[in-house]
Amino acid sequence: MLPNQMVKSLIGKEVRVEMKGEESELVGKLEGVDDYMNLYLTNATEVKNGEKIRNLGEIVLRGNNIILIQPGE
Amino acid sequence: MLPNQMVKSLIGKEVRVEMKGEESELVGKLEGVDDYMNLYLTNATEVKNGEKIRNLGEIVLRGNNIILIQPGE
Amino acid sequence: MLPNQMVKSLIGKEVRVEMKGEESELVGKLEGVDDYMNLYLTNATEVKNGEKIRNLGEIVLRGNNIILIQPGE
Amino acid sequence: MLPNQMVKSLIGKEVRVEMKGEESELVGKLEGVDDYMNLYLTNATEVKNGEKIRNLGEIVLRGNNIILIQPGE
Amino acid sequence: MLPNQMVKSLIGKEVRVEMKGEESELVGKLEGVDDYMNLYLTNATEVKNGEKIRNLGEIVLRGNNIILIQPGE
Amino acid sequence: MLPNQMVKSLIGKEVRVEMKGEESELVGKLEGVDDYMNLYLTNATEVKNGEKIRNLGEIVLRGNNIILIQPGE
Repeated sequence: MLPNQMVKSLIGKEVRVEMKGEESELVGKLEGVDDYMNLYLTNATEVKNGEKIRNLGEIVLRGNNIILIQPGE
Repeated sequence: MLPNQMVKSLIGKEVRVEMKGEESELVGKLEGVDDYMNLYLTNATEVKNGEKIRNLGEIVLRGNNIILIQPGE
Repeated sequence: MLPNQMVKSLIGKEVRVEMKGEESELVGKLEGVDDYMNLYLTNATEVKNGEKIRNLGEIVLRGNNIILIQPGE
Repeated sequence: MLPNQMVKSLIGKEVRVEMKGEESELVGKLEGVDDYMNLYLTNATEVKNGEKIRNLGEIVLRGNNIILIQPGE
Repeated sequence: MLPNQMVKSLIGKEVRVEMKGEESELVGKLEGVDDYMNLYLTNATEVKNGEKIRNLGEIVLRGNNIILIQPGE
Repeated sequence: MLPNQMVKSLIGKEVRVEMKGEESELVGKLEGVDDYMNLYLTNATEVKNGEKIRNLGEIVLRGNNIILIQPGE
């Protein structure tokens, strides 16, 4: 299974995303993804050391600055 | 909805943008966006820890150095 | 042998991956890879100084933030 | 207006450019720009905390390492 | 001579590679290179301040995170 | 004049190059450049705070990690 197919299979579900050079990570419902792995999340929250820091609501994450995408628990 | 469509839907509205490796963030009115997510903002201000630091006026932000785009509040 | 062919030859096997700007590294079974070297791993774990820190399960790693890919031992 | 059109409209004028991971910024006359936002500046100077540090003369800046472009004052 | 041709001329020989954001560098025999400058090395070792730290064996290095490639001595 | 044309006009001459995330810079004779601004230099030296640190001889620099290219003095 290709990486992009794996990410597309997560649409409608919760994902956890680590961004480059950021200590905190983003958790939210994956609404859309494109070929660059740009992500559109809703109900997004910023999480640090397992603790929710901020509600962000709707966000778009730039694919080339993503380190890791993981299905939510 | 694709990430780029989401960003395009914000044209004419205020957006908040986090850039890679920067402590401060940019807030401004989104005037234009292209396929690389390069952004053209007007009335832009630099914001740090929720405080406005500087008025920047018109700016162009390079898409591949964007971490996160969020609709303004 | 081209770098991408080398990585594709590791599908189904364990790989070790160093990501840009991260102190820890990822080890897991390579399930898929695309032309951008995006990787899909299962049974992934985060490893720091040779010690397993966290089980991550399924993850997707963004190719352009990969420093190094090595066959698992 | 697209971001690239905005930058092209600045040809012949002074621009201020912030580069990724650099504390200082570059100010100069924009001579040329391409689709990657690579910039060719003349009469460029390096500026830090609002103070001119160095005259650089002619420089080329790599587009993908640009954070922000702003019209000169 | 184009940069990529120069790198291709090193296939079968030892190369030294500096990666972005890494203190150590990689030395190994260049087996393959593609248009993105992704590199496939064998007999690779990690070197820091001129001292060999680790044997890595076979590795693939991601081209866009390469700073510098130099023919081995 | 486009940025790439400017760089091509420097072939056969000395250039100074600042790389992303590196304190030192590279000076050498520009032998070749491609559309990604990958550079092939000969007689290259590493320079820090205006002092020559190391002779590097022939090197290839990866274009996307270049911050700035300047004609040599």
